[in-house]
Amino acid sequence: MIALRAGRPVEITGVCARDRSRDRGLDLAAVRWFDDPVDLAQSPDIDVFVELMGGEGGAAEASVRAALNAGKPVVTANKALLARHGVDLAEIAEDKGVALAFEAAVAGGIPVIKTMRESFAGNRISRVYGILNGTCNYILTRMERENLAFETCLAEAQRLGYAEADPTFDVDGFDTAHKLSILTALAFGTKLDADRVYVEGIREITIADIEAADELGYRIKLLGVARRTETGIEQRVHPAMVPKSSAVARTDGVLNAVAIDGSLVGEVVLVGPGAGGNATASSVAADIIDIARGLHLPTFGVPAAGLEPYVQSEMHAHEGGYYVRLTVVDRPGAFAAIAARMAEKGISLESIVQRRRKPRAEPPASAVPDDPQPVILITYATTEDQIRSALAAIETDGHIAAPPRLIRIEEL
Amino acid sequence: MIALRAGRPVEITGVCARDRSRDRGLDLAAVRWFDDPVDLAQSPDIDVFVELMGGEGGAAEASVRAALNAGKPVVTANKALLARHGVDLAEIAEDKGVALAFEAAVAGGIPVIKTMRESFAGNRISRVYGILNGTCNYILTRMERENLAFETCLAEAQRLGYAEADPTFDVDGFDTAHKLSILTALAFGTKLDADRVYVEGIREITIADIEAADELGYRIKLLGVARRTETGIEQRVHPAMVPKSSAVARTDGVLNAVAIDGSLVGEVVLVGPGAGGNATASSVAADIIDIARGLHLPTFGVPAAGLEPYVQSEMHAHEGGYYVRLTVVDRPGAFAAIAARMAEKGISLESIVQRRRKPRAEPPASAVPDDPQPVILITYATTEDQIRSALAAIETDGHIAAPPRLIRIEEL
Repeated sequence: MIALRAGRPVEITGVCARDRSRDRGLDLAAVRWFDDPVDLAQSPDIDVFVELMGGEGGAAEASVRAALNAGKPVVTANKALLARHGVDLAEIAEDKGVALAFEAAVAGGIPVIKTMRESFAGNRISRVYGILNGTCNYILTRMERENLAFETCLAEAQRLGYAEADPTFDVDGFDTAHKLSILTALAFGTKLDADRVYVEGIREITIADIEAADELGYRIKLLGVARRTETGIEQRVHPAMVPKSSAVARTDGVLNAVAIDGSLVGEVVLVGPGAGGNATASSVAADIIDIARGLHLPTFGVPAAGLEPYVQSEMHAHEGGYYVRLTVVDRPGAFAAIAARMAEKGISLESIVQRRRKPRAEPPASAVPDDPQPVILITYATTEDQIRSALAAIETDGHIAAPPRLIRIEEL
Repeated sequence: MIALRAGRPVEITGVCARDRSRDRGLDLAAVRWFDDPVDLAQSPDIDVFVELMGGEGGAAEASVRAALNAGKPVVTANKALLARHGVDLAEIAEDKGVALAFEAAVAGGIPVIKTMRESFAGNRISRVYGILNGTCNYILTRMERENLAFETCLAEAQRLGYAEADPTFDVDGFDTAHKLSILTALAFGTKLDADRVYVEGIREITIADIEAADELGYRIKLLGVARRTETGIEQRVHPAMVPKSSAVARTDGVLNAVAIDGSLVGEVVLVGPGAGGNATASSVAADIIDIARGLHLPTFGVPAAGLEPYVQSEMHAHEGGYYVRLTVVDRPGAFAAIAARMAEKGISLESIVQRRRKPRAEPPASAVPDDPQPVILITYATTEDQIRSALAAIETDGHIAAPPRLIRIEEL
């Protein structure tokens, strides 16, 4: 089937892996084994080098460079490598006239790279955003469905193999940031700059936030968003309130979703498996078949030399609505003082939700007169600067009993 | 931007259109006009021929054939032409070594052709299905949201330009069938056979069906489904009950959605604008840029000569659950007789809903003792043959006051 589609047979002729004896479900007895991936990459017996080791440097980087320098097309699923060395590697690939393909590096089995680079080629892209990390989405979905705390869901994700023993890379948003930086380059024709992605993870999300979101018509998702603004390009990864009716809100568990806003077509949303061996294999196979068919495009859609410098739109200038959860000390005037601080900064409130308490007739044991009460505010569009300075003032005033929680609302 | 992405400038050098004076939003003064599209197709001044006339024969067919025979790549949005002459045209294109590209022919701005032909190249596809006609989806969405009859919504769609004066092609499912036959060829590597698509339109859908679907956790969508079965390939277009939680259920208005089930990746769903000038332009531009970049694949993913004959899986052998709405004459034994007929054919009932009547204490004027009552049945998986013969027996028995309504349930 692949030979028919590719127009030629595709064969595995050499392999390099740490563990030679592991059962991989196929017979590799006739395949030449290499101890050093650089040797494999440079072997005259191979036409295409496929890198599935991971890691932004080390053996992955060395072997990919070696293959490209030897004039061999490369297929990789390595988002960290691309986020760090993408432009450099693209220049080598283009210099040598070979493809550097990486469909599996972002959103697993979802064909987002091909869609952006080829199907949207006639569009100016204004925004690309999505759920790019299945681990975080699994955790948020379980928290929401089963009313469980973050730590419990993380432990469950680790038990099921969806999260690493050290979950930092996933739950703190860095994995999403790597992927987003690749999408940014494709969307806007700019150089990659993963270090300047604004990143917040999901550790601070509580059941209280998820319940409040639900009441207000939102769900909380970890989004990666790249958007063109008047001052540059915003790249941000953070938990966001998304309307329940949106496609990303309805993307649950380990699925990924990517939405691309194009000047001609409007919004196209792609949903599918974002991780896992088979989803990765599907994208790797597509890249190999593309190369066998002779497809050969600039790595990021335009020649690497033509990628423009990344001009950052600063996060403090970010504009949008905000969800704010305050733990307000229950005494006269507290709320008036909070509202006054918001007004001072020119922030209009779209809604205010004082979470229902038990009726006064049956006060819970803890309901002493100044027991702090959660208050949820939804603002109209304002800037990150304004909301942060309003919250700093509110905190200084001493009317709140805990640091304020802030979650951005994403207009979809 | 397009020149950078395409690696060369792309220019309109010749145009043929009925109305030469119409304002098209761009200056065509310097462009050579042709009265006959065949002359344009054969003109030595053009490198690529773009056909946007429509129609399965006539000028569209003649000019596309002329262009291909002259060795020029063709971009078309013409699903009827492809459904009728696709294999033949693909053979000419491959014989001449040129591309025949048609992303805009199915699902407008959604990159479903590229996704199936390229991104799924490493997968065996088991099913492709979707909402492929925005007119029908607009009508069904309005019926559901505003509780309006089919005719009212159709008139509204016509007023807004979403439906033609003669809506047959859209609302009776033929447009979806044309598109489905193209997807079938891409999914299964078979020759196109639009005449053997089973087709039912949406004219018979009533508010009562939509309300019953809602109560049972479904929504009604006009689906095109191509699926590999044990006996061949099923191609069918009909209103279907889809679970509310599914991506297609949530695709509203003029949007389209296509889901592709692959052996490696699982299900990927693409959602976006299915029609309209800009969505079409986005796909046409992508095809032109692909050609400018040198992309050149067999039209249907494998060489036209390698397309297998289409082996039809007969509709009477279709297996699935069914929704049945009966208008039952309200007299003793009627329901027992109906249940017995179902059991006779080996059909198990998953649920039975007798729609609530006003309480006996306040009978509506029409509630005479044998006033017919709607009864909804949901069956477990059975075959089209079995359900149809059960319903025929029930009709003959005389316990129902109107022909039964039957809507297939699609497992998603």
